[in-house]
Amino acid sequence: MSKSSFGCALCAQDGGDLVWRSDKLRVVHVEEDGFPGYYRVIWNAHVAELSALSPEERAECMGAVVCVERSLMEHLKPAKVNLAALGNQVPHLHWHVIARFDWDTHFPNAIWGEPQRPRDHDREAAVGALLDVVNAQIRGYLAKGETPQEK
Amino acid sequence: MSKSSFGCALCAQDGGDLVWRSDKLRVVHVEEDGFPGYYRVIWNAHVAELSALSPEERAECMGAVVCVERSLMEHLKPAKVNLAALGNQVPHLHWHVIARFDWDTHFPNAIWGEPQRPRDHDREAAVGALLDVVNAQIRGYLAKGETPQEK
Repeated sequence: MSKSSFGCALCAQDGGDLVWRSDKLRVVHVEEDGFPGYYRVIWNAHVAELSALSPEERAECMGAVVCVERSLMEHLKPAKVNLAALGNQVPHLHWHVIARFDWDTHFPNAIWGEPQRPRDHDREAAVGALLDVVNAQIRGYLAKGETPQEK
Repeated sequence: MSKSSFGCALCAQDGGDLVWRSDKLRVVHVEEDGFPGYYRVIWNAHVAELSALSPEERAECMGAVVCVERSLMEHLKPAKVNLAALGNQVPHLHWHVIARFDWDTHFPNAIWGEPQRPRDHDREAAVGALLDVVNAQIRGYLAKGETPQEK
């Protein structure tokens, strides 16, 4: 069982569209305007910092982040994948795993920074059409329990 | 020996004030206005994504991130530590590890987002005065080779 904290949004809700859940963590897809390839890996227990995890838990958590990263790289061919655990607003350990494209509104800035250009709805839709495949790949990697590695 | 890439800023330079270096990675302190407790953990070899590392390398890399995070938490008592590997501008694996305070210019926004208030130079200086102790703690943890865990 997970520790949970009253009033914490990530204890009360999945935090996105559920793709995978295990005892320890879950992967969700996030609906965020302009960033169709946006996922979160959320630790189920209410801890704030990565250093609250044991080495084994940390390996499991970062392994899941890598499963999502590789699925994005393989199927969406982004310019870069961005990883971030901030938690200033919701101090419950969650990793943003975001496929970034050189045509997206903010590239090369962080998604929290200044926009650089208008949205490209056609390209966003083309990415969106691949998400079922990405989700299946994420589930496949996590079910296998072996973290994929870039060749 | 590390792979390196011509023209990459993090292959050519340390990328900050060197705190620790091993064969595989280095820790640097970053001079960034408004954020005195700002470090980077930089993988020495020129790889872009976390998934380019083997599981053992990933554990070493994230272990170093946790050593920095714990040192910041213990000595600076920040509201939160932010972790991010973006690499949109410099696609060479590096982790931003940033102590965030509720009085800093951007909190609770990401440091790449909208500022919320003016700088508090006195409090920044008070944090700056503790950096020698933080650096010593980082070196101590990394020399020991055991990742500290939050109690």
